[in-house]
Amino acid sequence: MPRLKRQPDKAPPRERILQAARGLFYRDGINAVSVDAIASAAGTNKMTVYRHFSSKDELIAAYLDLLAAEGEAVWAEARARHPGDPDAQLRWLMRQVSQWASEANGRGCALANAAVELAERKHPARRIVETHKRHQRGRLVDLVREAGYARPERVADELFLLVEGARMCLQSVGRAGPGSRLFALTEELLGSAPRKKPLKVHTA
Amino acid sequence: MPRLKRQPDKAPPRERILQAARGLFYRDGINAVSVDAIASAAGTNKMTVYRHFSSKDELIAAYLDLLAAEGEAVWAEARARHPGDPDAQLRWLMRQVSQWASEANGRGCALANAAVELAERKHPARRIVETHKRHQRGRLVDLVREAGYARPERVADELFLLVEGARMCLQSVGRAGPGSRLFALTEELLGSAPRKKPLKVHTA
Repeated sequence: MPRLKRQPDKAPPRERILQAARGLFYRDGINAVSVDAIASAAGTNKMTVYRHFSSKDELIAAYLDLLAAEGEAVWAEARARHPGDPDAQLRWLMRQVSQWASEANGRGCALANAAVELAERKHPARRIVETHKRHQRGRLVDLVREAGYARPERVADELFLLVEGARMCLQSVGRAGPGSRLFALTEELLGSAPRKKPLKVHTA
Repeated sequence: MPRLKRQPDKAPPRERILQAARGLFYRDGINAVSVDAIASAAGTNKMTVYRHFSSKDELIAAYLDLLAAEGEAVWAEARARHPGDPDAQLRWLMRQVSQWASEANGRGCALANAAVELAERKHPARRIVETHKRHQRGRLVDLVREAGYARPERVADELFLLVEGARMCLQSVGRAGPGSRLFALTEELLGSAPRKKPLKVHTA
């Protein structure tokens, strides 16, 4: 789908509503934001919101889908920047994530925050978060394996927890806390984790 | 203050209200729970709630204070179980935290969840979370140092992020995700992080 560059106020209503929801949901939390507030921020009214999204839950799901799609795009960018070099892709990803974590006004990962707010286990939007996070984790394991680490699941899980923990800590403790050391910790982990020995070629 | 063993329904109203708020806030999230719902769960009415807590925010603050106090008690228990043995205290704490994380219905750390929900930076209750988490982190650094690790800040921050990340992951990815590997990861970290060499005694 080609992306049109438009002025925000010229964007079609569905897109304007989704972008308004995105800004408010992330800043204030999903439960704290009313459909009225979203309609007003999008320069429209509640009826128009409900014409495009049958319920607030559907709008939440669309918001999470959008975030997941953006998450996917980051992996594509890593590959595009360092084609055929999984080690460089991995380090680039960790640098990006560390930078974003420290820049995001301390509000951390929008998908993880949504999981905290969607306490009801069966909430339909939870599945989007879960699927995306599982997917990311699987991909991280693959990339760590391609980068030649001896125990890819272990290294990937540790990276995953460090990233999630840092984004959480930046919210609860702020920048003076351990969250700000994410990049140093992941760099050190990647530098010290054992690599596989190159395969020995058995000659007959 | 002596603790009286009472039937829950015989407890004084303030305590009943606080315990009801605690259960609901943790399960459903701070923003999703109304003062009416708390009053009803405590077997009282809204007016009585407001006689004991001037606002919902004050009730939230009391809830977070209670959690922080319980967090403190865990450190005291670690010391009581393994007096004078910082290494054993550290491993006991990590085992406890890992167990709780996997038992807590996947709702993770109540204090961290509150930080996600209290998006407004100046919310008075945020300070309780921040102070408590900073305090815990400082104590963890001290304990890691006492246990003889060469770079106590680095080891403590890594443990801290792994714990926070695991509690977050259990919410967003569930038990099949990397959160369930917390104990293995912390054990391995504590087993492999370099220890200080014993001080050399210079004899004249």
